[in-house]
Amino acid sequence: MASLTIRLHPADNVVVAGVDLLPGTPLPDVDTGTDIATRAAIPSGHKVAVRAIAVGEPVRKYNQVIGFATQPIEPGDHVHVHNTGMGDSFERDYAFSADAHPTAIIPEAERATFQGILRPDGRVATRNYIGVLTSVNCSATAARLIADKFRGDALDAYPNVDGVVALAHGYGCGMGAQGEAIDALRRTIAGYARHPNFAAVIILGLGCEVNQIDRLVEAEKLDPSETLHTMSIQDLGGTASAVRAGVERIKALLPKANEVHRQTVPASHLTLALQCGGSDGYSGITANPALGYAVDLLVRNGGTAVLSETPEVYGAEHLLTRRAVSREVGEKLVERIRWWEDYTSRTGGEMNNNPSPGNKKGGLTTILEKSLGAVAKAGTTNLVDVVRYAEPIVGPGLVFMDTPGYDPVSATGQVAGGANVLCFTTGRGSVFGSKPTPSLKLATNTPLYRKMTDDMDIDCGPIATGDATIEEIGRAIFQLILDTASGQKSKSELLGVGADEFTPWQMGAVM
Amino acid sequence: MASLTIRLHPADNVVVAGVDLLPGTPLPDVDTGTDIATRAAIPSGHKVAVRAIAVGEPVRKYNQVIGFATQPIEPGDHVHVHNTGMGDSFERDYAFSADAHPTAIIPEAERATFQGILRPDGRVATRNYIGVLTSVNCSATAARLIADKFRGDALDAYPNVDGVVALAHGYGCGMGAQGEAIDALRRTIAGYARHPNFAAVIILGLGCEVNQIDRLVEAEKLDPSETLHTMSIQDLGGTASAVRAGVERIKALLPKANEVHRQTVPASHLTLALQCGGSDGYSGITANPALGYAVDLLVRNGGTAVLSETPEVYGAEHLLTRRAVSREVGEKLVERIRWWEDYTSRTGGEMNNNPSPGNKKGGLTTILEKSLGAVAKAGTTNLVDVVRYAEPIVGPGLVFMDTPGYDPVSATGQVAGGANVLCFTTGRGSVFGSKPTPSLKLATNTPLYRKMTDDMDIDCGPIATGDATIEEIGRAIFQLILDTASGQKSKSELLGVGADEFTPWQMGAVM
Ligand SMILES: [Ca+2]
Ligand SMILES: [Ca+2]
Ligand SMILES: [Ca+2]
Ligand SMILES: [Ca+2]
Ligand SMILES: [Ca+2]
Repeated sequence: MASLTIRLHPADNVVVAGVDLLPGTPLPDVDTGTDIATRAAIPSGHKVAVRAIAVGEPVRKYNQVIGFATQPIEPGDHVHVHNTGMGDSFERDYAFSADAHPTAIIPEAERATFQGILRPDGRVATRNYIGVLTSVNCSATAARLIADKFRGDALDAYPNVDGVVALAHGYGCGMGAQGEAIDALRRTIAGYARHPNFAAVIILGLGCEVNQIDRLVEAEKLDPSETLHTMSIQDLGGTASAVRAGVERIKALLPKANEVHRQTVPASHLTLALQCGGSDGYSGITANPALGYAVDLLVRNGGTAVLSETPEVYGAEHLLTRRAVSREVGEKLVERIRWWEDYTSRTGGEMNNNPSPGNKKGGLTTILEKSLGAVAKAGTTNLVDVVRYAEPIVGPGLVFMDTPGYDPVSATGQVAGGANVLCFTTGRGSVFGSKPTPSLKLATNTPLYRKMTDDMDIDCGPIATGDATIEEIGRAIFQLILDTASGQKSKSELLGVGADEFTPWQMGAVM
Repeated sequence: MASLTIRLHPADNVVVAGVDLLPGTPLPDVDTGTDIATRAAIPSGHKVAVRAIAVGEPVRKYNQVIGFATQPIEPGDHVHVHNTGMGDSFERDYAFSADAHPTAIIPEAERATFQGILRPDGRVATRNYIGVLTSVNCSATAARLIADKFRGDALDAYPNVDGVVALAHGYGCGMGAQGEAIDALRRTIAGYARHPNFAAVIILGLGCEVNQIDRLVEAEKLDPSETLHTMSIQDLGGTASAVRAGVERIKALLPKANEVHRQTVPASHLTLALQCGGSDGYSGITANPALGYAVDLLVRNGGTAVLSETPEVYGAEHLLTRRAVSREVGEKLVERIRWWEDYTSRTGGEMNNNPSPGNKKGGLTTILEKSLGAVAKAGTTNLVDVVRYAEPIVGPGLVFMDTPGYDPVSATGQVAGGANVLCFTTGRGSVFGSKPTPSLKLATNTPLYRKMTDDMDIDCGPIATGDATIEEIGRAIFQLILDTASGQKSKSELLGVGADEFTPWQMGAVM
């Protein structure tokens, strides 16, 4: 059963109705110090004021500004378009760093830990794969044929190796040899090649592709070595020889790759990728704020999280510029927003996140509030950096990476940037995985969790029914992140999902 | 050893030097009725006149106009930019149908035949697969997990079934729900779903994707039936249940799918896809004209061939408009050329096929001649139709399908259009395959054939060394097409290549 109201953050001056509320319904104690009854009918999903809000004062949800009172608002009032708006000056003002605030970092000795794999160069892994990457679609089949040889019991002698995984894609030729599209593809492949979750990597090409491996290695300053090999099918004399060479190489790599052990390391070595897909009406009130709570915990423990999906914050980028640690960081986000405006005007895409009539009927008052549903999963700490697609993510703290909203493409950029755990909230039911990075799926509602229990890692539905708080589920998510980083298999790993989700952003025209 | 000269078509007034020729080199009899000696130094790959060409008369190579004499040309003269140009009026004049001519169709009783699989509705297949198609990247892994269950000896009881193949892709969401990009994706998936080489097909989706299966079925007038099933992972309750359901469905389909036998059918049931990739200096003088010879044979036998890769004929579309059976067909091609001009100007791509200084040094005189190297593989018959990407190819005769030049994307459109055999010429060494359509690879030179013999189906190199004629190799290609259509495995099939090459054209912005 749904609870009467859901309180998304203690600092909020509104709560969300969990069911349709009649006028005069007494609300349970919401820590405001006074008893409150509704002063109007409040449809399920809509907002009720729990404090008085004077004209011009901000309305806060998820401890974020979602708009400003345009009429005086009393406790118990329905808060919606009739008494709340964006505020003209707010709409035009990025207010760089206006809401930035010190983060209560936990002292080192008290920080959470996990069982990680320490690489010789100091990087920390959460998994231990051998990867076969490709420069172009033409080497996709050969890469898969190589990985296929290590199915079944082939790795029984190497219990510390999680698998040999081929990450193929459909791009790499029929594109310009210079420009942002090939730059992004190179960053993506290089990011995976450098990912700590790979003990070793082979990059396999055909030979005549536009995305030449030599130039990729040079542009990205990769270092071919004992653990990074490049191969070309044309040089090796064809598919069968390339597969043989790849298999032999991996056989030679396995003993060393197996020589790892997990050890206690601080949670500050985690970089958590944030995704949502197949959202529903519960995403913004259960799974996303609970994940946001976990992200705040992670950041307080010295860790890093990465929020993405630029089209989903378009028009509400103020939410992030206000939280930027500096004007410079905020302006990096604005620059990306401008890039998207140009990109979509050129390519005929549409970016318009304004609340639709349907959104408004559901209780969303402003574009800020709509985007907040997605941004809530990033918690409440400062925005410390903005990076382009597949660029290295350097924390600690919350970083924004510019990506499309399409989940596999977005997550591919985040993993390329170094994410070593991923959390994916879903209301409709995602079946995502993202090798070599373990991926956790957070159901926004209990019926979904029950229906797709083999795919869902955690149920955030009890928040909506009042059977758990955001804090409780948030802490459970944080613990599951630590356990998963320590080697506990996620649902998608148990199912064998995660290789086909490698989908680099195809940014330019296919020629 | 290379021969002195290569004669690409008996009607040509030029031949190509196979080696550097000194002035005064007597040329072997080239059926012109006179003995000829070179009147200048002719670099290897450059053209020598074998007949006198008056100012304004066309220079013909592959029996196609590649330009016009700008100076009087004598037999033995070097033919290049100093005495040959495009001709201003030619450049601006599409001359619709000017070169169209009757095709000498072989009487039905004398036509070539192959051993085909006749489907109940009259379509003819060259292979007999069960397909698992996907609407979106999110169902890719589940589709592969289904097909994986039919590896090894799982199909031993069904010897007439060639395999269960998952054709996944990275697209289907993060895109507009309307417009040319989703239309092209729907056509592609529907074209595969209808392909005669599938005994039965499952289309697997996630459930919440932009590319909704119901709308795909409706828009493409697909007919869910005993042999066409649609499934959604969210409806079925997750990855594991969807895989179980898919596997059970296929097990139920196998006995019926196995009830096929091959029978003698005319070659008119063949639709041959033409591709070239990883071209080299020999492509235009060995493999492409030999394949063109085979295409002419196929068309004379009532069959159909499909040429594609619009960016590779850009600027030389006159070659095809002149051969169009009607102005209407020619104008369809011009309309596609205009579309590409708009597409590339919007997306920052480059289309410029002009011979570069390097091309000119190699002996290419005009843009027409450069593109002719690629167009030569389509033979010399009339252009009977022009279709958009992944539209049904309806012959008989030579059809042009508008596609990018990127091979896997181009071939995916051709197979979606109904191609049931594919020939791919390559100088650098392609490892292409295209399930469910068998794919033959034609090496342009013998060293490549020897180096990648496990991948190459036929060696066209002997044309360059004078050890075989274009006609001889052309006839061998035609016979190999018939044998392959009859069930003989191609090299890529023996290697297990062909599922990862399914790459629908991603035409719009990824959002
Ligand atoms: Ca892929
Ligand atoms: Ca998402
Ligand atoms: Ca998304
Ligand atoms: Ca090609
Ligand atoms: Ca090509």
